[in-house]
Amino acid sequence: MSSKSVGSEHRGGDSVCNVAIVGFGTVGRSVARILLEHPPEKLRLCLIYNRGVDKKKVPWVQPHVRWTERIEDVFAPDIDIMVELIGGLKPAQDWIRAALLAGKSVVTANKQLIAQRGTGLIALARQQGRQIGFEASVAGGIPVIRGLREGLAGDCLFRISGILNGTCNYILTRMEASGLPFASALKEAQDLGFAEADPTDDIEGYDARAKLAILAQVGLQCAIDPSEIGCRSISVIEAIDFAYARRLGCTIRQVSQAEKSAGDKAQLFACVQPALVSLSSPLAQVQGAQNLVMTAGKYGGKTVFSGHGAGGDPTAVAVVSDLIAIAGRGREPGGPVSATETDSSNSSHPVSGEFSSPHYVRFIVRDRPGITAALATVLSNYRINIDALLQEPGMEKSRLPFVITLEECSNAVLERALEEILKFDFHVQPPVSLPVLS
Amino acid sequence: MSSKSVGSEHRGGDSVCNVAIVGFGTVGRSVARILLEHPPEKLRLCLIYNRGVDKKKVPWVQPHVRWTERIEDVFAPDIDIMVELIGGLKPAQDWIRAALLAGKSVVTANKQLIAQRGTGLIALARQQGRQIGFEASVAGGIPVIRGLREGLAGDCLFRISGILNGTCNYILTRMEASGLPFASALKEAQDLGFAEADPTDDIEGYDARAKLAILAQVGLQCAIDPSEIGCRSISVIEAIDFAYARRLGCTIRQVSQAEKSAGDKAQLFACVQPALVSLSSPLAQVQGAQNLVMTAGKYGGKTVFSGHGAGGDPTAVAVVSDLIAIAGRGREPGGPVSATETDSSNSSHPVSGEFSSPHYVRFIVRDRPGITAALATVLSNYRINIDALLQEPGMEKSRLPFVITLEECSNAVLERALEEILKFDFHVQPPVSLPVLS
Repeated sequence: MSSKSVGSEHRGGDSVCNVAIVGFGTVGRSVARILLEHPPEKLRLCLIYNRGVDKKKVPWVQPHVRWTERIEDVFAPDIDIMVELIGGLKPAQDWIRAALLAGKSVVTANKQLIAQRGTGLIALARQQGRQIGFEASVAGGIPVIRGLREGLAGDCLFRISGILNGTCNYILTRMEASGLPFASALKEAQDLGFAEADPTDDIEGYDARAKLAILAQVGLQCAIDPSEIGCRSISVIEAIDFAYARRLGCTIRQVSQAEKSAGDKAQLFACVQPALVSLSSPLAQVQGAQNLVMTAGKYGGKTVFSGHGAGGDPTAVAVVSDLIAIAGRGREPGGPVSATETDSSNSSHPVSGEFSSPHYVRFIVRDRPGITAALATVLSNYRINIDALLQEPGMEKSRLPFVITLEECSNAVLERALEEILKFDFHVQPPVSLPVLS
Repeated sequence: MSSKSVGSEHRGGDSVCNVAIVGFGTVGRSVARILLEHPPEKLRLCLIYNRGVDKKKVPWVQPHVRWTERIEDVFAPDIDIMVELIGGLKPAQDWIRAALLAGKSVVTANKQLIAQRGTGLIALARQQGRQIGFEASVAGGIPVIRGLREGLAGDCLFRISGILNGTCNYILTRMEASGLPFASALKEAQDLGFAEADPTDDIEGYDARAKLAILAQVGLQCAIDPSEIGCRSISVIEAIDFAYARRLGCTIRQVSQAEKSAGDKAQLFACVQPALVSLSSPLAQVQGAQNLVMTAGKYGGKTVFSGHGAGGDPTAVAVVSDLIAIAGRGREPGGPVSATETDSSNSSHPVSGEFSSPHYVRFIVRDRPGITAALATVLSNYRINIDALLQEPGMEKSRLPFVITLEECSNAVLERALEEILKFDFHVQPPVSLPVLS
């Protein structure tokens, strides 16, 4: 039903682009729904691929859209853009390469693939004169890839921080609001579909670091291997930590941060970890499964983007926005792929996880005289200055939680001090240290 | 010193674009500084126009950049992009038209011009195969034009609200924080350079409504005449209003709002006014001269953009980002100008200023028995329900401020009730009504 000739060399620009969705899960269904309910100019959904496709068919998809379980149909000449929504590295990477080699542009929500293989795929797209859009790979419906790459292109960004994992933010804000223990908040998140049966990728920070690697590449022009970004789990956080954090005017969030030092030999710092953030910070104000990205630039100062970081419909908005950009720009290579990414060489930038900040350290001990003196002596040996000691009243002596706040110190030095401190016999469980972000 | 041929038909894409800055004030200087300190690929500053240019020359501009006070030099064949930073309608409009007709693309920060004449200029740019970028016309360094038009292109936005005037937000947040009267906060803003000697455009909402008109066109696809957007002044706000607002869990902000109803014959509501906003709203969290834009979409839900809405450097970031987009996309018409704007016809969309919401009404009266009964009777005649009556203790009887909160009612009906109420002789000054935004 398309009026243009099959395999036309003049697709894009003024003619219609035929779209194939690969993977008809939550996001795929939302993409199809938007494309059918509000068909954007120049875009036409015409093929849906899924394994065992018969079980996926839904009546609201119009009859002109074909269903297939043969991936080869996606690489056929009548398809202009492949939307990859199967996730994971295999076979997504092979299929995206095949699509690009067959002259299609690609839109993907695949954060792990873009974080780990993005540079190569972008280079291939460029070489093929095609485009690859990945707005949906970070922060769902928040247009942060475009915001960093194009909207703030005129600035020199040096820092990106944010809340990139809605599951962790849901768990932490539930613990904050209701005093739930971590395990109960996680269970609740799983029951509500905010967390997966195996929540490791979220809780340990692996999901967030893939997104942070993409943002660092797009916004800081640093290609980094996501596995080099240090992660710390949020599973060590207890309800009592929120009580102490509040006494310090703070709350606790899983914060992803990347910062580039000035100069030609720019150092890159990056990590994903639970941290204390001031209640007045935009990071503290992110509730539930929302996401937020904050940039700092030499000229523009701080800019904040926030909204729905996940979910079928918001993620589909990002996919459809990429489709519209590709259809509008046709074969122009300056579309979703800009010079920025391709400039960063394939070799990845070394990443440091070392930083200085005030710290919060929470102990749980069997109380006895001399504990404070013992801790203070070790910290002093490492030249770490104690700022304050906090203890909530009415706690059990056999399992006493208390907090020491520390003046600015290196996380690596503190780590060594805590290893030494861990040798004392008064711990009920290992101490938890969190940076206090300003 | 440019390597490309003068007047080349293949400018953009891979060759260098020569840039002329028209107007060397605060923003012009920042644009020049960014272009010279961090020259973006394919962009070259080569001409600066200003009246009485000799007084404007600065030593840090390199000698290859020419200075001129002849605007004709900007229209010469060796210039590819004109950056218009003189503001106002005349002669900016004529010069932009001349530049487009001479085959140049244009970048402008001129909100009044884009709000009032944008449709025609965009159509001319399209006709000429050139581009016009106006990211800097709204919310300074926050990439909201690109965010709405491209980043959220895949959504169906139905509401845009925000804090679009940094001067008003500075004044209101100062009143909030320190209990200053309006006049003192305004004076302070003027002394610090946040407000102009004649602050009318800011205080009365004329500045914000021009920006709102641009956002409505870009995000809601409604071309509107900014003069049709109802404005209410923030000058009626008194320090006592912040005390009452806080008792209601709110604060006061100048809020710009535009909302489109669903359906083919979409109604557009738009206004700029002081309003009570919940302390937990992103609007309440905007401090000082910052800006914030919040969108609501059918699929993506709420998305928030915030940052520095004014100032030389942040505004220059928006200008340079537009320049980079134009240089990268060359002659491709899908750049800063998208189909969206040109689709909206030249005829402007009718605007309604009528809305329903709970209201806050503050009276200042010479106290005597029967005032509440008199007010309640009139309100009841208009079928407006009173929610609560608030009175701070210890106020002077001869000048007693008190507040009535009203359940959801039409602002137009309330207006008529207040006209009737104004006839009573107990007023020390006219009552002030503010909507309470949820």
